[in-house]
Amino acid sequence: MTVTVEAPTQSSVTDVARRAREASRVLVRCSADARRAGLFAMAAALEDHVDAIVAANLLDLAAGETAGLSAPMLDRLRLDAAGVAKLAEAVREVAEQPDMLGEVTDEVVRPNGLTVGRMRIPLGVVAMIYESRPNVTSDAAALCLKAGNAVVLRGGSEAVHSNRAIARALRDGLASSDLPVDAVQLIQTTDRAAVRELIQQEEFIDLVIPRGGEGLIRAVTRDSRVPVLQHYKGVCHVFVDASADPAMAINIVVNAKVQRPGVCNSLETLLIHTDVAPSLLPQIAGALRAEGVELRGCPATVDLLGDGVVPATNDDWGEEYLALILAVRIVDDLDRAVDHIGEHGSSHTEAIVTEDEDAARAFVGAVQSSTVLVNASTRFADGGELGLGAEIGISTSKLHAFGPMGARELTTRKFVVYGEGQVRS
Amino acid sequence: MTVTVEAPTQSSVTDVARRAREASRVLVRCSADARRAGLFAMAAALEDHVDAIVAANLLDLAAGETAGLSAPMLDRLRLDAAGVAKLAEAVREVAEQPDMLGEVTDEVVRPNGLTVGRMRIPLGVVAMIYESRPNVTSDAAALCLKAGNAVVLRGGSEAVHSNRAIARALRDGLASSDLPVDAVQLIQTTDRAAVRELIQQEEFIDLVIPRGGEGLIRAVTRDSRVPVLQHYKGVCHVFVDASADPAMAINIVVNAKVQRPGVCNSLETLLIHTDVAPSLLPQIAGALRAEGVELRGCPATVDLLGDGVVPATNDDWGEEYLALILAVRIVDDLDRAVDHIGEHGSSHTEAIVTEDEDAARAFVGAVQSSTVLVNASTRFADGGELGLGAEIGISTSKLHAFGPMGARELTTRKFVVYGEGQVRS
Repeated sequence: MTVTVEAPTQSSVTDVARRAREASRVLVRCSADARRAGLFAMAAALEDHVDAIVAANLLDLAAGETAGLSAPMLDRLRLDAAGVAKLAEAVREVAEQPDMLGEVTDEVVRPNGLTVGRMRIPLGVVAMIYESRPNVTSDAAALCLKAGNAVVLRGGSEAVHSNRAIARALRDGLASSDLPVDAVQLIQTTDRAAVRELIQQEEFIDLVIPRGGEGLIRAVTRDSRVPVLQHYKGVCHVFVDASADPAMAINIVVNAKVQRPGVCNSLETLLIHTDVAPSLLPQIAGALRAEGVELRGCPATVDLLGDGVVPATNDDWGEEYLALILAVRIVDDLDRAVDHIGEHGSSHTEAIVTEDEDAARAFVGAVQSSTVLVNASTRFADGGELGLGAEIGISTSKLHAFGPMGARELTTRKFVVYGEGQVRS
Repeated sequence: MTVTVEAPTQSSVTDVARRAREASRVLVRCSADARRAGLFAMAAALEDHVDAIVAANLLDLAAGETAGLSAPMLDRLRLDAAGVAKLAEAVREVAEQPDMLGEVTDEVVRPNGLTVGRMRIPLGVVAMIYESRPNVTSDAAALCLKAGNAVVLRGGSEAVHSNRAIARALRDGLASSDLPVDAVQLIQTTDRAAVRELIQQEEFIDLVIPRGGEGLIRAVTRDSRVPVLQHYKGVCHVFVDASADPAMAINIVVNAKVQRPGVCNSLETLLIHTDVAPSLLPQIAGALRAEGVELRGCPATVDLLGDGVVPATNDDWGEEYLALILAVRIVDDLDRAVDHIGEHGSSHTEAIVTEDEDAARAFVGAVQSSTVLVNASTRFADGGELGLGAEIGISTSKLHAFGPMGARELTTRKFVVYGEGQVRS
C-alpha cells in the first residue's frame, strides 16, 4: 500500500497566523447555517479520508514503537477506522449544538433613551498547542469554528502524520463549503522554534490554549505575548464530612481514585472529619486497598490504620500522583478541610460527601476551585459530563474561563448601543 | 499647618501580595451585608480624613509645580475638600449596587440526576497599577471589594502623598468594619522595581490592571506572569452612512470629536459614504472648523473640501490624536468602512449614523470592537454611561472582558454540582 503524506509547506508561521486572521474576518460574516454546514462538510470529509488517516496513523505508531513509546502512549496515539468515525461523529455533535453568536443579553434602556445590550461574538483566532492525541486536531477545530473562530493547530511530533492527514481532511471539507479553508490550519513543521514564533503573533492571534504537560504550559505562558488559558495540575480533594453517608462516601472515594487514575479530575487527597474517621476510614481504606491503592497518611491516619500506611511527608499534600496512590488526612472540621484545599489544592475540582445541607452550602461557598461537587465523584469535572458538549480544555486560572471550556468559552461579548442621535453633554 | 504623612513601611512587595491573598481568603467568607457595611465605613473614613487628604494633595501639587507638570496634569492631580466628598460618594454608589456574588446561573439537571450550575465568585487578588489621578485609589478599591477581591494598589509618583493619605483612610474604615484591613493595600515605595516585583507574584495575584500610557501597559504585559487586562489606544471611528440624517450626523461627529478630545472614547477618524459626501461633508467640516478642529483628509476629501484640509498620510489612519485633529476618509460603501476599521482601528469604539436598519444591523454585526453604537456619540463608551456603575477600566483585548469593566468584570464563575452519590462509570 502506498501512503501519500502532505509535505510541509514553506510558508512561515507568521504567514499562517496572518491567513488565520483574514479567515476570521470572513468567518465573522458567515451565518450560523453556513457554519453548521461547514462542520458537517468537515465530518463527511473525515469519513472520506479514513484510509489516508489510518495509514498516516500507522506511520506514527511505527515511529513511536521505534522510539520506544510506552504502551499507554501508543494507545493514546492509535486511530483506527472506528476511531475516525468517532471523530466525525464528535464534529457532528458540535455542529448540532445551539448557535450562540449574535445573541444579545443584559439589555437595558438608559435614562437618556440609549438601548444597551451585549452581543456574543467570536474571539477571532485561537492557537491550539497540544501533545500526543490526534483527536484534538478535529475536536479543537470543530469547537473553534462553532464559535466563529479561525484556528491554528500545532500538534506533537509523535502524531505528526496523523495530524496532517486529519487537517487535510478538515480543509477538504471546508473547501466544499462556504467557509474559508484557512479557518483551519496546521503548523506543518515539528520544529520547536515554530511554537515560539506562533505565540508571539499578538497582532493575528487572540488566544493560545496549550494542552499537555506542565512544562509545556509553563513555557508557553512565559514566552507568549498572546493571552494564554492555563490548565495546570489537577490535585483534587474529597472531604468526607461528619454526617456523610458511609456507603456513599466509600463509593465516591473509590470511584474518584481508581476509575481512571491517570486523568486530571481523579482524586489525589482524601480529607476526612475526625468525628467519623475511627468508624469510616478503616472501611474506606479497605475498599481502596482491595483496588490496589497505596495510602500515604497524616500521623493520625497512621495511628488509626496501622502499619499498612506510608507516613505522608509535606510533599504528599498537593502532589498529583496520577497513579493508584492516595494521600489521606484527618481534619478537625470543615473549615480545616477548606484551609487545606486552599493551601495545597490546584483550583481544579473538590467534592464534599455530607448529609448536612449547611455543611454542603458552606463547602460550596468557601472552596474557590473551578468545580465543586456535593455527593458526587470528582470524575464528573468534564465538559461533556457537565453539559457543555465537547470540551477544548479545563482552565485552572480564573480569567476569562474557569473550569471545563466548551464553544461558549471561545467567545466574548461586545456592547451594542442603539440611539436616536444622543450626544454627551 | 503640620502635615503628617505615613512613612513607607519596610515590608516587601512579596509580603504585601501574600497578605492580600490571605485577606482574599477571609473576604470570600464575608457576607454581602458585611461587604456593604465595609464600603460605607470606607466612605465615612474618607470624609473623616478630608483634611489630611487635602493637605497631602497640596504636597503633591507643590512637587508637581516644581517638577514643571503641565496645567492639565496638575488639574488631574488636584483634590480639594469637594473632591474628597465626591470620592466618598462614589464609594457609597458602588456599595449600593446589587450584590452579585453567589448568584447561580445556567442551572441544568443532567440525565444522571446531577444538578449543575455556575456560581459567581471573586477573582481573588487584583493588582492595580496606575498613573496620576488619585481618585483611582478609592474607586478601584471600592470596585474590587464590591466584587469580593483584595486589591494591591500602586499609584504614580506624582500622587504619592495623596494616594498614601487616601489608602490610610480606606484602611481606617476597614479597621472599623468586619472586613480584613489588608483587603486594601498600597505599595508605599515609588521605586519602579516594585512594579516588576508585584507583577511576578503569580502565586498571590490573580489579575493585573494597568491604567496609563501605552508604554506602561506594554511594559506590564511583557513582564507580567499574572494575566493582564489591557487598555491600549482608543482610535474611535464614526461612519456616516448614505442614509444618515444630516443634522444628526453633524451633531454626533462634532460631539464625539470636541466634547472632550483628550479621552479614549473621542473620535479620531471620520468615514463617510461617497454618495452623501458631496452634500454633507462640507457641512460637517464647517461645523468642526467652527470648533477649531484641523482636518486631515484622503485625496477625495481634499478634492471636495479644498485647501483647508491637510492631506492625510498613511500614519493618520489609526492615529490617536487626543487633540482637535480629525482624519477624514470617503469610502465607497459600508463594507469598506468596516474594512478600514478592521485594519486601522483599536477595537475600542465605533459608531454608525444611519436611518437604514439593515445598514445598522450589518455594521453592528461586522465591526469587532468592544462598543458599537448606532446613532449615538462614541463618548458614551464608558462604564457609567452604559449602566455598569463605576468603571475600573476599558478592556480592548477580548479575553475575560471586552469594553468597559465594572464590578462584575472582577468576578468569575465556578461550576457547582449537587448529586446524590453519583459516580462515573
